[in-house]
Amino acid sequence: MFAVTILGNNSAVPAFDRHPTSQVVTLDGNNYLVDCGEGTQIQMINYKIRRSKISHVFISHLHGDHYFGLIGLISSFGLLNHQQELHVFGPHPLKEIIELQLKVADTKLPFALHLHTIREAGVLLDTENLKVTCFRTNHRIECYGFSFAEKKQPRKLDPEKAREMEIPAAFYDRLKDGEDYTRKDGTVIRNDEVTIPATPGRKYVYCADTKYDESLLPHIQDADLVYHETTYLDNLRERAELRFHSTTKQAATMALKGNAKRLLIGHFSSKYDTLEEFEAEAREVFPNTDLAREGVVYPL
Amino acid sequence: MFAVTILGNNSAVPAFDRHPTSQVVTLDGNNYLVDCGEGTQIQMINYKIRRSKISHVFISHLHGDHYFGLIGLISSFGLLNHQQELHVFGPHPLKEIIELQLKVADTKLPFALHLHTIREAGVLLDTENLKVTCFRTNHRIECYGFSFAEKKQPRKLDPEKAREMEIPAAFYDRLKDGEDYTRKDGTVIRNDEVTIPATPGRKYVYCADTKYDESLLPHIQDADLVYHETTYLDNLRERAELRFHSTTKQAATMALKGNAKRLLIGHFSSKYDTLEEFEAEAREVFPNTDLAREGVVYPL
Repeated sequence: MFAVTILGNNSAVPAFDRHPTSQVVTLDGNNYLVDCGEGTQIQMINYKIRRSKISHVFISHLHGDHYFGLIGLISSFGLLNHQQELHVFGPHPLKEIIELQLKVADTKLPFALHLHTIREAGVLLDTENLKVTCFRTNHRIECYGFSFAEKKQPRKLDPEKAREMEIPAAFYDRLKDGEDYTRKDGTVIRNDEVTIPATPGRKYVYCADTKYDESLLPHIQDADLVYHETTYLDNLRERAELRFHSTTKQAATMALKGNAKRLLIGHFSSKYDTLEEFEAEAREVFPNTDLAREGVVYPL
Repeated sequence: MFAVTILGNNSAVPAFDRHPTSQVVTLDGNNYLVDCGEGTQIQMINYKIRRSKISHVFISHLHGDHYFGLIGLISSFGLLNHQQELHVFGPHPLKEIIELQLKVADTKLPFALHLHTIREAGVLLDTENLKVTCFRTNHRIECYGFSFAEKKQPRKLDPEKAREMEIPAAFYDRLKDGEDYTRKDGTVIRNDEVTIPATPGRKYVYCADTKYDESLLPHIQDADLVYHETTYLDNLRERAELRFHSTTKQAATMALKGNAKRLLIGHFSSKYDTLEEFEAEAREVFPNTDLAREGVVYPL
């Protein structure tokens, strides 16, 4: 499974039972936390996110609604005797802030905490099935978006067909890598007779906080799912510009121009008590838009 | 009104819908916040605490469950265009932590924020109707309890009686201060003929995190309401000692020996999913004990 679970969809100030920004990206049983506003650990309990499965945290920028919950999460991991290594990525001086707070409380963590400072766009994580890269967004302070690109999977073997063709099991891995099989008598069994193509790697792109900026389009390009902030409805375009945020139609335009398959919108201003208009406005430009609703899992 | 509202009654890790420590002390329309664990601002919304009435925050110590919500609260005050001055008291280096986080986010607050470093026991606040003092508790790191002592109110005038006795209104304030009135003909109207005694000043004492320590008794002495932590039930007395916390019966013994009128217990360990036993055990020693329940207002 490749999916995104929304833990907080509000902008700066919590309101109307909406919480500051946080999401969990799930791929093949691993949880990657993206931003961690205040109360994220409580939202995790509310929505039964397995905290023990979190190995990496990505913080986009150091406005409080995106990271004030991190120190609490790390401290709780310590108290809960979490054992798995934890990698945290964020801009300077996140590392210093967390280290200071741990030191002051005389906290000894029972796991290895790796605090990585993001200094520029690039690859943050490269595993067997996933590549996470970051890119600069256009915000009031240094801010990064994150792209979660699933790696292309090997071809899938049809074991019945392979047995029928009397291909030895030892050759199965090579079949999955796309090789043909040549019998001792010289006859060739074409790979596509016994395998089916893998699904191509899917891509989730989190655009963090940003004003409308088409220089971000290459990162969004052809993504299966894009999260783009919509702090304001479209009549507040000027305010959005001034505060380095985006409106509904701006987010939708980015998804459209980037040829994304689906758009998720969030980071709603606390001035709005209902969200229906956000959905309606964005869909005028990009129909396949959904509101990022807290507690909801959005599969890719 | 003089009362305490509980916002969080759990120890370190949030669990079972219980939140980290925070309380609001209300006196004559002013709100004083005592400790501010993660999510306190959300609890304030849940329980309709008027954030605009908060002028002072007292942080007992720098374990995260007592202060991780402070930076979020201050930031939100800024975004909500709070105008009233805010005074925050806490041990070193709380001031440095808050200032660093505000600086990193490039936050400009629209109100005056005064960060006071508590360095020793003493008076923190002295107003017309309230004196707040702090005292050291016996915890793993530097930690302070807080005593909220209402000042003795002036005597209450019986205006009908005063009119009947033909005392000029200009003399009423002096009556309230306890003076007798002497008529021009030399006859004296005794003060207690036209006034009734004021209720003596009430006292609330918050003992923060602490192990059992009788040297705290002078601070508790004769208090109308004492909050004392009970992280553990009494069978875990050794663990409590080791971790600089207290048990039910230890808290109740403190209230008993300090001749307190009423005891409130809280800071329950996350290992307990129900709290009835806490109440029962403490009441064996000190019957007038109540659980600190979130959202409940305890009047003095």
